[in-house]
Amino acid sequence: MKTQVAIIGAGPAGLLLGHMLRAEGVDCVVLERQTGDYVLGRIRAGVLENITVNLMERLGLDARLKAEGLVEEGFNLADGERLIRIDVANLTGKTVVVYGQTEITKDLMDAAAPRGLEVIYEAGDVALHDIESDAPYVTYTKDGAAQRIDARFIVGCDGFHGPSRKAIPASAAVEYERVYPFGWLGILADVPPCNHELIYANHERGFALASMRSHTRSRYYVDVPLTEKVEDWSDDRIWDELAIRLGPDAAANITRGPSIEKSIAPLRSYVFGTMRHGSLLLCGDAAHIVPPTGAKGLNLAASDVHYAAEALVAHFKRADQDAIGLYSGKALARVWKGERFSWSLTKLMHRFPEDGPFERAMQVAELDYIASSTAAQTVIAENYVGLPV
Amino acid sequence: MKTQVAIIGAGPAGLLLGHMLRAEGVDCVVLERQTGDYVLGRIRAGVLENITVNLMERLGLDARLKAEGLVEEGFNLADGERLIRIDVANLTGKTVVVYGQTEITKDLMDAAAPRGLEVIYEAGDVALHDIESDAPYVTYTKDGAAQRIDARFIVGCDGFHGPSRKAIPASAAVEYERVYPFGWLGILADVPPCNHELIYANHERGFALASMRSHTRSRYYVDVPLTEKVEDWSDDRIWDELAIRLGPDAAANITRGPSIEKSIAPLRSYVFGTMRHGSLLLCGDAAHIVPPTGAKGLNLAASDVHYAAEALVAHFKRADQDAIGLYSGKALARVWKGERFSWSLTKLMHRFPEDGPFERAMQVAELDYIASSTAAQTVIAENYVGLPV
Repeated sequence: MKTQVAIIGAGPAGLLLGHMLRAEGVDCVVLERQTGDYVLGRIRAGVLENITVNLMERLGLDARLKAEGLVEEGFNLADGERLIRIDVANLTGKTVVVYGQTEITKDLMDAAAPRGLEVIYEAGDVALHDIESDAPYVTYTKDGAAQRIDARFIVGCDGFHGPSRKAIPASAAVEYERVYPFGWLGILADVPPCNHELIYANHERGFALASMRSHTRSRYYVDVPLTEKVEDWSDDRIWDELAIRLGPDAAANITRGPSIEKSIAPLRSYVFGTMRHGSLLLCGDAAHIVPPTGAKGLNLAASDVHYAAEALVAHFKRADQDAIGLYSGKALARVWKGERFSWSLTKLMHRFPEDGPFERAMQVAELDYIASSTAAQTVIAENYVGLPV
Repeated sequence: MKTQVAIIGAGPAGLLLGHMLRAEGVDCVVLERQTGDYVLGRIRAGVLENITVNLMERLGLDARLKAEGLVEEGFNLADGERLIRIDVANLTGKTVVVYGQTEITKDLMDAAAPRGLEVIYEAGDVALHDIESDAPYVTYTKDGAAQRIDARFIVGCDGFHGPSRKAIPASAAVEYERVYPFGWLGILADVPPCNHELIYANHERGFALASMRSHTRSRYYVDVPLTEKVEDWSDDRIWDELAIRLGPDAAANITRGPSIEKSIAPLRSYVFGTMRHGSLLLCGDAAHIVPPTGAKGLNLAASDVHYAAEALVAHFKRADQDAIGLYSGKALARVWKGERFSWSLTKLMHRFPEDGPFERAMQVAELDYIASSTAAQTVIAENYVGLPV
């Protein structure tokens, strides 16, 4: 098979890019190792910046997002009994939308066939070849048979563990990484959220996050040492812990219910120092990981896709010879700001085992300062809604 | 001798407090271990916030400050070749004044005798007694003779190494401390500054600061490992290092000259968890230390003096029984914000030996973000001019 752009990975980044290229008349094929149902079963974040909403809007795929998404005008930082509200709407004139990543993926999947976007699921042993040439190709197996797709460009949207980034020689870029000494234990339950806005809590027992997917589905987290096992956390134990860490007002409004999903995810900051190597472009988790604090992961993938689509369309439709070369720099400039915000909010809202009384006092001083300063609240708000593209 | 308030230390904090109490008719005596000339010989910072200028103004001791102080409307963060200007005046509507701490001290000293403020220099073996009672007293020796001052309150303005804080039992408060893995090597020279505004530089070879005391006197710093000896740094070596670290534009304007003073000062963050114990109040370095980055030391001492004078006047003049009890909380709230700012600016502008590529990337990302965001610049500017009292 021959195409202009071979996209690896049918998560939200790959599907979004595929739709954007199709809409501009650029040929592409999306390859996915898993089944569509498996992809939809992955539970991920769900706070969308303007940029992400705008991309769905430009594709005309925002009907359900507009109908079911919850527009959020602010969120809260809790510190013991204190609640500091960040009035995002008033401080920035913008809002975010709560709409699960799973729902975005479903909307993009449902639109693929009607719009002629080819997605090949259950593509095994995906491998990238000749990425340093102008004629790269991808091999894979499907139903036991070896397959090959020739393309002008390959875009890796295959996440942190996919083959795309690994196809780039280690000498091509510096890796930047920070691993955090805790994980997030998450619980998903079909109960109304305890608060209409998110609450990030820094309690002496640790971090907690009260979040939601809809008016009837809640997503909560507590941080735990990486040595903890999810089997040791009954639903009741998690609800008890949440009630302590989120503070008395939120606790009084928690509705408990059986978990639909429960898991421990490690926290990591990671950036691969280039997002293009030869004819291979990387988007989203394939190139960078943020800790989930601040919900930047999907939104950074969306801005990558924005820049990648812009570059590919410029290349194919306007014969712009420089566009591809500018991609990595443009995308990374925004990625680094997202990494900085996620890292700084993680540091502000978690208790680190290596921190002593001075570092804890600095957290309290920063929260005190934030509570008292419009400028400090604006800094948080403008990062939360997403910096300009 | 009997007085209402015994003040220990005739640095700017002690003298400022003495003048403020005298102006309100509260009796006080200032005790100083050194000679007046020795105190004036100490080289310290010289960037004054509004609060500090206002205190001098209220005392009517601001004539020379107004005439000779340099009003500064902004300052700069340098990162390699880039210069990020923080437009303090436009962002906050306020300015800072460059006027050496030594000059402030001199103005306060010169006004002491005319205003009837008693300052006892060369008071040896100062010791505090019965601070948990309502009748504390101070003993010292003067010209070989043992002396005693009885007071209702003692205020310790005697710096980090003075006897006041040490008179408080260790069990009375938590100590918060962070020691930094470098010191500032400073050079003072009678040459015009390389720039009319301060430049804080984070260069791959380390930190540098271009500062000044007047149009004809410059103060520069570079950070060095704590193992360095000042004897190994000739004037030329320091000028060479500054020229590299401050970036090409500043370097082109550096005027070299012989050093008047040259020394290495360690950097420390320190807070003693209470600023009052019984009848003893602490002000300034006696209670807390900040790294010099951001020039908060003298200004925090000034806000302590503001709160202490307010509390003591309320106690003696209005028989307010609660005022003294509120002092520590009020002063510490502002101290912690100053500690936070000094610590965060130190972290942003220095290369820490323990930092890896990720932490360095976070510095660059933060500088990029600051360069692009008015809110982020406002956060720095409002802390630099001083948060509200």
